[in-house]
Amino acid sequence: MKRYLKTIRSDEALQRILDHVNFSGGEEYLQTYKCRERISSRSVYAHVSNPPFMCAAMDGYAVDFSKTIYADLSRPLSLMITRDAIPVNTGDPLPDGTNAVIMIEDIEDADTSIAIRKPVYLWQNVRMIGEDIVEGDMLIPANHEITAYDIGMLISGGITHIHVRKKPRALIVPTGKELIDLYNVEEPVNKLGGLVDFNSYTLLNLAEETGLDCTISQIAKTKEDLYDIIKNAINAYDLIFVNAGSSAGREDYTEEVISKQGELIFHGISMMPGKPAMFGVVDGKPVFGIPGYPVSAALIFYTFIKPLYEKMMHSSKNTKLINCKTTYKIPSRLGIEEIIRVSLVENDGIYYAIPLPRGASIFSSMARADGLMRVPVNIEGFEEGDTIACELLTKKETLKQRIHIIGSHDLSLDILRDMIKTHHTAFDLISTHTGSLSGITALSKGIAHICTTHILDENEKIYNAPAIKKYLADKPCVLIHIAKRFQGLIVRKDNKKNIKGISDLSRPEVKFINRQSGSGTRILLDMLLSENDIEKHHINGYDREESTHTAVGIQVRESIADTGIAIYSIARVFSLDFIPLAEEDYDLLVTKEFTEDRRFKLLMDMVNSNEFRQRLEKLGGYNTKETGRIKFTKG
Amino acid sequence: MKRYLKTIRSDEALQRILDHVNFSGGEEYLQTYKCRERISSRSVYAHVSNPPFMCAAMDGYAVDFSKTIYADLSRPLSLMITRDAIPVNTGDPLPDGTNAVIMIEDIEDADTSIAIRKPVYLWQNVRMIGEDIVEGDMLIPANHEITAYDIGMLISGGITHIHVRKKPRALIVPTGKELIDLYNVEEPVNKLGGLVDFNSYTLLNLAEETGLDCTISQIAKTKEDLYDIIKNAINAYDLIFVNAGSSAGREDYTEEVISKQGELIFHGISMMPGKPAMFGVVDGKPVFGIPGYPVSAALIFYTFIKPLYEKMMHSSKNTKLINCKTTYKIPSRLGIEEIIRVSLVENDGIYYAIPLPRGASIFSSMARADGLMRVPVNIEGFEEGDTIACELLTKKETLKQRIHIIGSHDLSLDILRDMIKTHHTAFDLISTHTGSLSGITALSKGIAHICTTHILDENEKIYNAPAIKKYLADKPCVLIHIAKRFQGLIVRKDNKKNIKGISDLSRPEVKFINRQSGSGTRILLDMLLSENDIEKHHINGYDREESTHTAVGIQVRESIADTGIAIYSIARVFSLDFIPLAEEDYDLLVTKEFTEDRRFKLLMDMVNSNEFRQRLEKLGGYNTKETGRIKFTKG
Repeated sequence: MKRYLKTIRSDEALQRILDHVNFSGGEEYLQTYKCRERISSRSVYAHVSNPPFMCAAMDGYAVDFSKTIYADLSRPLSLMITRDAIPVNTGDPLPDGTNAVIMIEDIEDADTSIAIRKPVYLWQNVRMIGEDIVEGDMLIPANHEITAYDIGMLISGGITHIHVRKKPRALIVPTGKELIDLYNVEEPVNKLGGLVDFNSYTLLNLAEETGLDCTISQIAKTKEDLYDIIKNAINAYDLIFVNAGSSAGREDYTEEVISKQGELIFHGISMMPGKPAMFGVVDGKPVFGIPGYPVSAALIFYTFIKPLYEKMMHSSKNTKLINCKTTYKIPSRLGIEEIIRVSLVENDGIYYAIPLPRGASIFSSMARADGLMRVPVNIEGFEEGDTIACELLTKKETLKQRIHIIGSHDLSLDILRDMIKTHHTAFDLISTHTGSLSGITALSKGIAHICTTHILDENEKIYNAPAIKKYLADKPCVLIHIAKRFQGLIVRKDNKKNIKGISDLSRPEVKFINRQSGSGTRILLDMLLSENDIEKHHINGYDREESTHTAVGIQVRESIADTGIAIYSIARVFSLDFIPLAEEDYDLLVTKEFTEDRRFKLLMDMVNSNEFRQRLEKLGGYNTKETGRIKFTKG
Repeated sequence: MKRYLKTIRSDEALQRILDHVNFSGGEEYLQTYKCRERISSRSVYAHVSNPPFMCAAMDGYAVDFSKTIYADLSRPLSLMITRDAIPVNTGDPLPDGTNAVIMIEDIEDADTSIAIRKPVYLWQNVRMIGEDIVEGDMLIPANHEITAYDIGMLISGGITHIHVRKKPRALIVPTGKELIDLYNVEEPVNKLGGLVDFNSYTLLNLAEETGLDCTISQIAKTKEDLYDIIKNAINAYDLIFVNAGSSAGREDYTEEVISKQGELIFHGISMMPGKPAMFGVVDGKPVFGIPGYPVSAALIFYTFIKPLYEKMMHSSKNTKLINCKTTYKIPSRLGIEEIIRVSLVENDGIYYAIPLPRGASIFSSMARADGLMRVPVNIEGFEEGDTIACELLTKKETLKQRIHIIGSHDLSLDILRDMIKTHHTAFDLISTHTGSLSGITALSKGIAHICTTHILDENEKIYNAPAIKKYLADKPCVLIHIAKRFQGLIVRKDNKKNIKGISDLSRPEVKFINRQSGSGTRILLDMLLSENDIEKHHINGYDREESTHTAVGIQVRESIADTGIAIYSIARVFSLDFIPLAEEDYDLLVTKEFTEDRRFKLLMDMVNSNEFRQRLEKLGGYNTKETGRIKFTKG
């Protein structure tokens, strides 16, 4: 029953793909003005010069310069209109017998004759033929991506049509018995029991963005479906992407179908995510078996299909690389190349790479990624502080307009982001939820502009200030209050297990869901447990950690756990009951340096606005009486 | 008759435009997968979690983990299929009563039961509900530009449709009695006597690239036409661009028409190119009067209409800036902001800005520009070597893949460019024609990778080597032979003035067209004149300079001049007669440093190819016997 993939390295895989595809491109002859972003398939030479004749550079009168040489300040010279001075507008061809233009601003009267007080010289105010472009000039070479400016230049050179490479036609074939196309169902989304196909739409958009002409076929529910779809499509399309059915499971028949219709070139790449990818050739056309995990699908496209497209089109979009500092140790398995998605933080000219969740199923990490970091096959990962070249997915300029917050999760961060994007569209706020303690560490390392925190000090019974003094020893900083908020146990409305407080957590039938260590909520829990003399190992689920309030909320609502600790607004969002445990201070901590940055001032405008308070109050469970207060300044 | 524009500064102009447009954007509700590159008009929250339920992370069997705890290496445990072990594929919801998945690879037989040799733990190979996205998560904020990855993420969160900002609709109105639309004429392009409208197509493409929904109206031939077009369009469009009719000439009625239908806000900006631009509001809609000179039109769009679009859409594409070193002194008039188009050369990590021709009519400079350098109103230009921030139009990565040649013009450079783009699509060759001497200077300053040269030494009677020794004293370099080529006088076939040789140039009725000083051809001419004892000031046209062979060719063909000096292939291209004067060496000079660069090796592959020789021979007038020979190595 077991099948093993014989994997090859990603560079070898790419080489085999490129070697097996000898698509000639093909060209089409289109109106020039419809060719922006298309690739020229031939070099283009100017058909006419621009300007195509000697012409007036100004509105005025065309004259023969030799007739004006006696004009003088004290003795104006008169030229008879239409005989000696012919009215011309900018761009008009120079009439025969004339070789200069007198500007309309330089003449004295203009009824039947004009008077001038200085001579004009040969070719004055005349645009020479071919001044811009000379007939026969190469305007664009072959394999050139055409810009809006190129289009103007080409038309000015008389080129109304050009040869451009045809867009390769690609077909995406979704496979899977239970796959659901949301655009083809009647039931409401939340009532569907199957797997929603979103890969096809990601691939469609990646393909179109790259320059392919792309279509999604009907879903292949069976092996026979897949066989027929490929058979019928192979003539009409230049590339086929089968998604998925490339693993080793019982419905993974893509390999079999490709082998039957053509030649399988490889199956398996020592690359993660993306390992089960396969590639074959059917009737001379490339057929890819793209893995089903959404991150794998996107990375296979990015790593192999983009370069293949570029080969087909004889065009190349250079990948932008950026040198980044790793912020944590990044271990990786020897023998497999790993592609790490990273979030990038610009601080003082240095770009810090923060690894995003690595799972091939965590597709939101693809949408959030600013860069891709490749750990080569033969190394065991990177150390913290290594400088690594990343493939850049977000513009550098955009990175510089961001506020990056690391620390404790709260719904107020979503509100602040939405407000910033609404009122200051060039800016953005990105938050990474690692918990309060990690947030403070991130701030001390310089890899965040701001951290969010709610750490209760066990002895002093006050929030944040003691922890900051302890963990952020030597960095001048400012602590700003966002809101007081209630933390409590959340339970389903029926509360069948009758949970009333912290002591119920040790009952063996109560399934608990915990927060990650270092989070303010975990610190609160541990303190409450110790105050109530409850042993951690008596709690069923103490070891199961989630890193956001929302994730705890959903698990309670879905009965995966019976209870967990979360903020009040989560109980409200998920229609759960709430048993209050503490009112805590949720604060922003910012380095003094960053308080000078305009991004900080902009954020504080949001924090201090009525809109922010109102939106927090509407969520419930927040006290905004002191929102925006500077709690202390250190250093 | 005179009219003066009351100009305002460009920043003030922009402010007035932004203040007068209060377009609400408007939104439309579209299928998510059609929204790539669109701007969200609302923040979007996940409708369902992803995954929406606990599901299998692997193909295999779903089990209750507690039933497996006695499995052991030596004592396999048997589970009955469908009762204790339910077959699942990746992505399937976990059946009721199960909480772990055994991978298909980890079981021993699978007929009616499966055997396992180790226990599984709770949630093993299970994807937790909301692992990627939790229902209620903010997926994208408002005013966010949607990517292919966002689309996948949104659909995975159950979002099939989203609200995006409507594209503003723009109408371009070309004006001008003699304006010709090449797509609406019967005659061949080279027989047309009027001004070809290419501005409309540049503006159309700039508008579409920016994100506008854009249309070109019929040409307004008269004031009344323009009045009617605006009147009929003002309800259906959000912006109107009138091009041109904004200067002070006799057909410049745009101001009058705007004032009559609405309010003129300003006319005239102290910015060059672009000065005569105007802006008004008709029925609350912005109406721009865009100057007719093509560079002005493009820069007015870039400077004012792009930011206006961004305001309308609540979105912002950050302008990329790059620090460049100026390579020449750039004088500029006080009191007017000047926008200089520059070509950028990357050499050893430094970006050098080479100013392109400044005329507002030289549109090819827009297509060739890699950056825009703004000289502010209040300064008189830049000194050579100043570091100035440029707005980047070409990707940095692209700049790094270019070979930049400065020096003498020859048609072989077009061939080499075409070959490089054909065989090595990621690379490009850019050449600037300043003449041999300037080329050597450019190489010595580091602002070119290679220079092309053909300078005859008067005493030694050999090409290039003496000049290089003289002007490139201390730089190690290599001289490589491209071809021998014939230079000669070119004359029209009828040769009415009976020109036979260099001595005819001093005849007063012979109109000559010269090359710029510092060019190899000029040096050749001056030497021939001195050998023949001809005084420069006896030559009619000695002062009229052109900077390429092609420009000389076109002026002779068009009878603007009777003769000039050019290479043989030019005579052939323009069907002219050729009177040989000299056979010269056209060579490449490259710094030793650059010979180590892979771009150089790639160029030499082209130079040494049969294809290159054959294409040169086909042009005629070249001797390629020693093409590619290294003539000397210095230092």
